[in-house]
Order: sequence, then structure tokens, then C-alpha cells
Amino acid sequence: MSRRIRRTPYTNNVEKLGVKGFSVVNHMLLPKAFEASVEEDYWHLKEHVQIWDVSCQRQVEIIGPDASKLVQLMTPRDISGCHIGQCMYIPIIDSDAGLVNDPVLLKLNDNHFWLSIADSDVLLYAKGIAIGKCFDVCVEEPDVYPLAIQGPKAEALLSNIFGKHVADIKFFKFGWIDFLNTRQLIARSGYSRQGGFEIYLKGADLGEKLWLKIWNAGQEFNIKPGCPNLIERIEGGLFSYGNEMTRANNPLEIGLEKYCSFDDTIEYIGKDTLKKIAKEGVKRKLRGVIFGENPCPTCSLPWPVKVGKVEVGAITSAIFSPRLKANVGLSMIDRNYWHEDQGVNVYLPDNEIMSGKVVRPPF
Amino acid sequence: MSRRIRRTPYTNNVEKLGVKGFSVVNHMLLPKAFEASVEEDYWHLKEHVQIWDVSCQRQVEIIGPDASKLVQLMTPRDISGCHIGQCMYIPIIDSDAGLVNDPVLLKLNDNHFWLSIADSDVLLYAKGIAIGKCFDVCVEEPDVYPLAIQGPKAEALLSNIFGKHVADIKFFKFGWIDFLNTRQLIARSGYSRQGGFEIYLKGADLGEKLWLKIWNAGQEFNIKPGCPNLIERIEGGLFSYGNEMTRANNPLEIGLEKYCSFDDTIEYIGKDTLKKIAKEGVKRKLRGVIFGENPCPTCSLPWPVKVGKVEVGAITSAIFSPRLKANVGLSMIDRNYWHEDQGVNVYLPDNEIMSGKVVRPPF
Repeated sequence: MSRRIRRTPYTNNVEKLGVKGFSVVNHMLLPKAFEASVEEDYWHLKEHVQIWDVSCQRQVEIIGPDASKLVQLMTPRDISGCHIGQCMYIPIIDSDAGLVNDPVLLKLNDNHFWLSIADSDVLLYAKGIAIGKCFDVCVEEPDVYPLAIQGPKAEALLSNIFGKHVADIKFFKFGWIDFLNTRQLIARSGYSRQGGFEIYLKGADLGEKLWLKIWNAGQEFNIKPGCPNLIERIEGGLFSYGNEMTRANNPLEIGLEKYCSFDDTIEYIGKDTLKKIAKEGVKRKLRGVIFGENPCPTCSLPWPVKVGKVEVGAITSAIFSPRLKANVGLSMIDRNYWHEDQGVNVYLPDNEIMSGKVVRPPF
Repeated sequence: MSRRIRRTPYTNNVEKLGVKGFSVVNHMLLPKAFEASVEEDYWHLKEHVQIWDVSCQRQVEIIGPDASKLVQLMTPRDISGCHIGQCMYIPIIDSDAGLVNDPVLLKLNDNHFWLSIADSDVLLYAKGIAIGKCFDVCVEEPDVYPLAIQGPKAEALLSNIFGKHVADIKFFKFGWIDFLNTRQLIARSGYSRQGGFEIYLKGADLGEKLWLKIWNAGQEFNIKPGCPNLIERIEGGLFSYGNEMTRANNPLEIGLEKYCSFDDTIEYIGKDTLKKIAKEGVKRKLRGVIFGENPCPTCSLPWPVKVGKVEVGAITSAIFSPRLKANVGLSMIDRNYWHEDQGVNVYLPDNEIMSGKVVRPPF
């Protein structure tokens, strides 16, 4: 560990709770596992409540008269209808319509946005465009560190601590809570399908106190430390930038058609290319694959997916689902083979082959 | 490990040789340690030859009629004198003169450059500017994976394998070698002060073969697998982006004055800001600190450096030097205290204080 891979305001807390390892996202630590196995963690997340250090979801703050123009330029999604207090999932693309990131946009004010990003330096992309276009905006990384509270008991826990109004926040909307005389943003969102909230804590020095406040109040709800759970996120059809999608993919391949506007009033980078792809139809699409009866290893390199001798795709994330008693994976699948129940073979390391079929996530 | 943190064409080889851990740079694996201790590795590097998987030094390829205009716009260094076949260390800055990266520029042709980058997505910055300015360039990440051969015996080893012309390549120049009927770029460069080369291998599928070719031929030179050595790089005054410098720093603070042109013929982003800073003089500069007699722990958070009660800087990288029998560290130091031999106290974790003094690297 060096300073280059940044610790978070919560790293001391996760270390005290026995974190077993970290991944790196946006040059920052993301806890990977605690005492519980991935499976134990999965069942716990579906029943109780967890606290996740997701500070690595860095914010790119865009403020200024040209802020909304800059945000719109980066995404094919029409953001003109986005209200203050709303979160919006927005794919970001380049001039070849390749995915640069898939952040959540938070509209704080008409000229004030945050992009809560996946793993790539969107800040540099935004800065580059703003400089090139001479936009009147300020693009910075604010002192904000998201903390996720996920699971069915999240609402009860956070209402207990911060007040009943938390329960009134609708999905993908945000509100405000008071914490030690500071006003903090809280959104009903998070990288799981079990419900929950993300607190966008402003002020690194408050991190340990916020963690402990929630941790202590969470004891009666059987709170555990956690992190995005691979079983739950694959089953839930939550895709991961860098895994299921890279700049080699366009949003239509990922099934993000509903976030791609071709309206004449909307201008964005890559629009002509994306329009052409939409007209011609994509050659492959992201699908689920359910395969094998025994747990597969970790997928760190894409695994070929074949129909007979034809390579029709590649698994980019996979894990054994204890609920389905089979492996669940995500894979681009070629057009002729992407229909449901298509039989496939998955080619794992060490010459292992598992048979399975194509499905549409969520599993 | 997931696909998001990319393996390299050499990862299988370093695993076979007992790599003990990885860091992550540019979303890619960088080996951190092998069997030898950092100190054993240090002495070996100074005497023999090592092979390093530095594929994470990703290339940003910029091709097209506006290529040199784009590169010049990103750096305060005057690149007009850069010849084909030359490497150039170029700080990259934003409009606030904050450092975005500090890559090595390779000029392949008048309209064809590679930027061999440190840990940030320069590709997105370059793309953003190019899109904003409507430049006629293509900005991509080519299929190139640098492999470093470092140490005093590197020249003899590589001349043996690829021919005597390798020895004629001057420092920070590059030439070409033949490997299995492919033409590969080789530069006399690398992230150590012990001399050596970097082969910019084009074609991931050739990686294992290239590694084995060099590994086998290296046996008579006592070759070992390695990676950037923290003792050697701090002693040598090699700075690390993300550690010693971030966007919070300008190139003048890092001592890069000679790479900052204020010539009227040169136009680049952040020039006005940098000019102003140069006129006013910087408030702090990067310095070395030599401190304590017992080995310090790993520096993962900046350690305050004080003179009396005044905080005058913060150590961002440090390690015990077996040669100097003291810890060597790198720190920004405030103007009033940056002169050589200034006495300081370094505040380590767990309330430990070590006394030392300011020096100018290399140590």
C-alpha cells in the first residue's frame, strides 16, 4: 500500500472489523471481504442490513453556467427532465460510442451536479471537454465519501438514527440528514437489489464518527460490515464497468436503449455513431448464462462461450449461486445465439467445460 | 481479482516465479514483490539484471494531423525539438497547472506519438480535449505491453539476444529489435537509476515467449524477476505520480522548472496559471528527508514533518536505506525550511517521532 492507492475515511473502521482484503477502484481502496464467506454474506444481505465503504465511488463535481451542457454532452441519456434531488443512471460514451463510465448523476441544483463514478477517471474526460469547448464550469473532486447502507433493514435503521423523513425518500431520489451539525446528502440507491441508501458524506474527518454511529445503532438489526456481493449483483443483473463493459462496448450492447435518446433537441458526443449502430442493430448483447452444477473458479480472464465450435461470447463475471444451485455468469452473446434457453458450453481454465443456457438477467 | 483489474501478457510468468503480491496501476496488475526482500532485491538490482512486468505503463497513442498540437497542449514542456526516436519526460497539467500525469513521450513519427503513462487515465483527458477542440486525431490504447530489463547487466544481456546495435541506443532514445519476425520498439529507459531498457512489446500473444527468451538468456547474468524497488527509487530521487505529486501540485513544486517553457511560441493548457506561479515563486518544494536510525513502517498516509511546532511538510514515500543506515523519504517542504540540512521531526503512526534533516535527492 502506498499513498497512491488512497485510504478512505472508513478504512480504519473496516480494518478493525477484520477486512480480509481490498480491491482498488478509482485509485482508492474498496473492501473485498470480511469474516463471512461470499455465500454467508449473500444470505445476510438479503435478510438484514450491511454497512459498506464505497468511498471509491468518487464524485466528479461539475458547477457553473455550462454545467448541464457539459453533462449532457457526455451522455446519450436525455437529462433535461432531471429534477433537483433526483439520481439518474447515465452511461458516458466517447466519440466512437464506447462506454467511458456508467455513473449515477445527482442533480444538486440547476448548475450543480455530481457524477458518482465507476472505475475510470471521468474527471479528466470532463475537464478535457470543458477546456476544449471553453465551457464556463469548474470540474473537481469534492471531499465526499459515499457510505452504503444496504439490505431490507436499512430503512428502519436509518430512520431510527436520522428521522422518519428518511423513509419518505423514493428510489433514486435524495434528501438531507443532519449529522453533528452538518447537512449530509442521502440517496435511496446502492449497488445491490436489496434496497438501501447511500450517504454522500462531506468531510473526511467525520467518517469514523458516522461509521460508529450507524454501526452502534445497527446492532439491534444484526448489522454486518460488507461490500458489493458478487452472487447478489450477478443474480440481480447489476453490471460492472471494466468487467461487463469497457470502451469496446456501446450502450446498446449492454441493453441501455432506454437511456439513449436520439431526439433532435439533444446533442452529445458519439451521437452519430450510436445512431448508426441503432439503425444497423447491434451484433451482440449482454446476457446471463446459467451453467454447471459445481462452483466455478474466479473469473479473472474472459471465458469463451461456445455453441458447438462457434465462439458466441465470453463470460466476464461468474460465481456459484447457492439459491439456483448453478453458476451464474454475464456474457456478451452474438446475435444469432442471444435468445433465451440457447444451449451453450462455457470453457473454463484447465480445460474444464460446463454446459448451460442463455437467460435474461436478473436470474 | 476480476477482469476489471487486468492481467498482463506476463502475469502467468510472474506467477510461476512466485510473485508475492500485486499493486494496481492503470486498472492493471503490477507485481509488488517476489521471494527476495526489498533489501535483497535492491542489492541485486544494483549489481545484476532484473526483468520487470511494467505493462501497466499503458500507452496512449495519438495519431493524426493534429497529434503534435494535442500533445503540446497537454504539457508545459516544449516538444518542438523532439526527434523521431526520442523519449521525453513530459509533465501533463490541467488549467490550474495541477499535475494530471508525468508520462514519457515517445515520438514514433511526426504525427504519431505514444505517452507511456503513470497512474491516471490520460487517454480520457486527451480524448476530451481532442473532442472539444475538434482535432483531427485518433486517441487509443494500443496493444502494447512494456517489459523492463533493468540493472548494470541489462545491456550485455539484450545485446546477446537482439544484437550489438542495442548497445548503441543512447539514454532516452529508442530503436528497434526483431522478435519472432516482428519489429519491436526498445528504449534505453526505465524506472530505476541502474541503467536498462524497456521493450514496448506489441502483441499480447508474444508476451510469454518474450519473457522466456529473456529469462533463459539471462541465467548466465544472474537474472531475477523484479519490480520498481522502493529503496532504489527514493534514493535515486525518482518521484511517483499519486505519491509525491497529485493534481494538488504544480510542476514547479516538483522541481520540473526545466520542463516548463514560457516561450511565446508555445501554447498549452494552464500556461497562464503556471506563469503566475513562476513569477510569484512556489511556496513549497519536493525535497528528500533523511531521518531515524531504525526502519520506519510503510507510508500509506502522509506523515507530518515539523520544525518545532510548525508543520512544514509531509512525507509521502519512505523506506529504510541499508546503504545509508537511515530512513529516506520524500516530502513537500515549505519555502522557509527547504534549505539543505534543515533539522526536522517526522511524526510517524503510533506517536513515534524521528528526527532528521532536509536533503536534495538523489540521496
